[in-house]
Amino acid sequence: MTAISPLALPFPDLPPIDGVRIAVSRAGYKAWDRADLTYVALDAGTVVAGVTTKSKCPSPEVEWCRQALVLGQARALVVNAGNSNAFTGNRGRAAVEAIAARVAGATGCKPSDVFISSTGVIGVPLPIDRAEAGIDAALIAPEATWEEAAQAISTTDTFPKAAVTTAVVDGKTITLVGIIKGSGMIAPDMATMLGFLFTDAAIEAPLLQRMMEAANAHTFSCITVDGDTSTSDTVLAFATGRAGNARLSDISDPGADAFEAALSDLCRQLAHLVVRDGEGASKFIAIEVEGATSDESAHRIAMSIANSPLVKTAIAGEDANWGRVVMAVGKAGEPAERDRLAIRFGATQVAEGGLAVEGYDEAPVAAHLKGREIEIGVHLGLGEGRAIIWTCDLTHGYISINADYRS
Amino acid sequence: MTAISPLALPFPDLPPIDGVRIAVSRAGYKAWDRADLTYVALDAGTVVAGVTTKSKCPSPEVEWCRQALVLGQARALVVNAGNSNAFTGNRGRAAVEAIAARVAGATGCKPSDVFISSTGVIGVPLPIDRAEAGIDAALIAPEATWEEAAQAISTTDTFPKAAVTTAVVDGKTITLVGIIKGSGMIAPDMATMLGFLFTDAAIEAPLLQRMMEAANAHTFSCITVDGDTSTSDTVLAFATGRAGNARLSDISDPGADAFEAALSDLCRQLAHLVVRDGEGASKFIAIEVEGATSDESAHRIAMSIANSPLVKTAIAGEDANWGRVVMAVGKAGEPAERDRLAIRFGATQVAEGGLAVEGYDEAPVAAHLKGREIEIGVHLGLGEGRAIIWTCDLTHGYISINADYRS
Repeated sequence: MTAISPLALPFPDLPPIDGVRIAVSRAGYKAWDRADLTYVALDAGTVVAGVTTKSKCPSPEVEWCRQALVLGQARALVVNAGNSNAFTGNRGRAAVEAIAARVAGATGCKPSDVFISSTGVIGVPLPIDRAEAGIDAALIAPEATWEEAAQAISTTDTFPKAAVTTAVVDGKTITLVGIIKGSGMIAPDMATMLGFLFTDAAIEAPLLQRMMEAANAHTFSCITVDGDTSTSDTVLAFATGRAGNARLSDISDPGADAFEAALSDLCRQLAHLVVRDGEGASKFIAIEVEGATSDESAHRIAMSIANSPLVKTAIAGEDANWGRVVMAVGKAGEPAERDRLAIRFGATQVAEGGLAVEGYDEAPVAAHLKGREIEIGVHLGLGEGRAIIWTCDLTHGYISINADYRS
Repeated sequence: MTAISPLALPFPDLPPIDGVRIAVSRAGYKAWDRADLTYVALDAGTVVAGVTTKSKCPSPEVEWCRQALVLGQARALVVNAGNSNAFTGNRGRAAVEAIAARVAGATGCKPSDVFISSTGVIGVPLPIDRAEAGIDAALIAPEATWEEAAQAISTTDTFPKAAVTTAVVDGKTITLVGIIKGSGMIAPDMATMLGFLFTDAAIEAPLLQRMMEAANAHTFSCITVDGDTSTSDTVLAFATGRAGNARLSDISDPGADAFEAALSDLCRQLAHLVVRDGEGASKFIAIEVEGATSDESAHRIAMSIANSPLVKTAIAGEDANWGRVVMAVGKAGEPAERDRLAIRFGATQVAEGGLAVEGYDEAPVAAHLKGREIEIGVHLGLGEGRAIIWTCDLTHGYISINADYRS
């Protein structure tokens, strides 16, 4: 086990969500002594929304979830850790169908009510017998805590990750809880590994889907650890409707804005936790790009900086090498003019108008870089486009974890 | 000084090029005890062609060379190592103009006949007094060897890099010699750091330019170390015309094809040397993508694999983790179908039709991965598009070099 990330946050106190019951079991997908199957039972009437990886080579679990999301109803979630079941052909598809059938047979729900995610090594079919035995064990297991579930869905994560928030909708207090895993292969365009959100709100599936996609665009799609994109990335949001609010069906419904803000806040908290467990991370980095010709252009420039190995290693070395930021802006291929570019580290302007600021004093920048939370600001001076991307530094820890993961 | 790359090749025996005279001197751009200014005098009648970085934030040296290339005539080359002079505003531009003026004043050529490149840290104006003193010293220095020049243009390089080739044109043996530097910030679309090619061929500048661009597209633009793109990348080719062949002016001229093949061969040798000195590299990796919908699509998929930190760390760990290749294909955003994808490591097919091959035996793959020269082949099964990209693995050495470069 790798040491706990220095950026880890303590596991929060989390309330139960009415209509959600969690269990974990040990399917034994790897030779380890820990729970690796998470089973979540959801009360009748639970609706679901979700977003999945943009990879052109998705896992069969992702394909299954995409189909099931169209129906928008959920009664169970099964999460397998240690084997992603991706790129396993018919045998992988058969494993997913077997899991859904097992749960449906035992609980009386439809197979399409069963949502399935798997994470771990690619290319090895998920063993059906272990999955089935794990499900059987989970069905009779005592109720597990959120923390046990957050641990059971993890792979290379160094700490369990969860967040909570609330909103008042229709006079009722709505609770939202999320658990998430992922610390590498975290990348643009859908950047969690696996995230699961649970709320007692009453809301219709299409509205929840719209809100989930909007929240994703400004949270999970704005984090990157290594620029790599998993074949399995999935975030699912389940709403049991037990809070008793008048069911939300349109964004203009009273309280819908409060719920959306809470959902977005929960997603941002969870996205930041993933970066905080970035493989080998020692610094949490926020990259703010302003003055671009559009928000999309700002996003691409910020991602170019966030994914630059030279920028990430400079931050790891606490080196105020802002020239590498110039390099990363220049390589993004987006509109940029060298002689309008301004760069700051923390609150300190280091360059503007195409060169270092007059009388540049590196001392406050060096002090900022010694901290755990780093801020890099870039102003392009061209327009109103803005974006923020969150990432971490690139250290020896990343190499150690990834040069010998599978063995 | 970092240890010499395990992928280094011995410095070749290089003949002189008629019309080319080299000198080196110590301008003292950094606190080091080595030559850091290279001066090349070129006989009257020398023509020049070149390609430069696609960065939107190029150095003033790059802007200077672009302007001078339009005229196509060269009498001198000055290369400064230890300071890239990039992102230095008017002071950087003034330094470039001062260098050209100093050489023109001393030799009687026009400022536009003087080509200038600088490499090193970004954001610090090149000190004009040191540059001028370095030029003055070089002008009276004894003739230097190719190896001394290759060392003088280096920064983080661990070994000097050069190559030679010949061609017969119009019954005359033409010689081409190139020196190159660069080991990080090596990236798509123009991927050397600084490369300088010298030939005694008689050829007109526009034809040399066309051949240089074509060679670049299949060599320097097909290597990547870290996906980062320098603000200073430049390759210049100088032709003195002293070989006595009938001057080549069109691609259909007799011998033009032989010369073009030799130029391309030289560029490929030099490009491979840059990868062999990739920062921290322990493996030289060739990534061949076939069956894509177009050559451009194949290029982008191969680059996605070559720049994936997870693929690069797996190779460093000699781990046959072909699932990461699937991941990198999937994230490229190019047409790909999981169930047609085939992958090989070396000569061993590991996956086809969307899953591991029947009876996959990892032993020959593991043996291949223990070597220094790694080959990854991907067949998409969609069309005729092909590309080859050369890269290296990502190791602790890269982190060590780059987390503490500037200090």
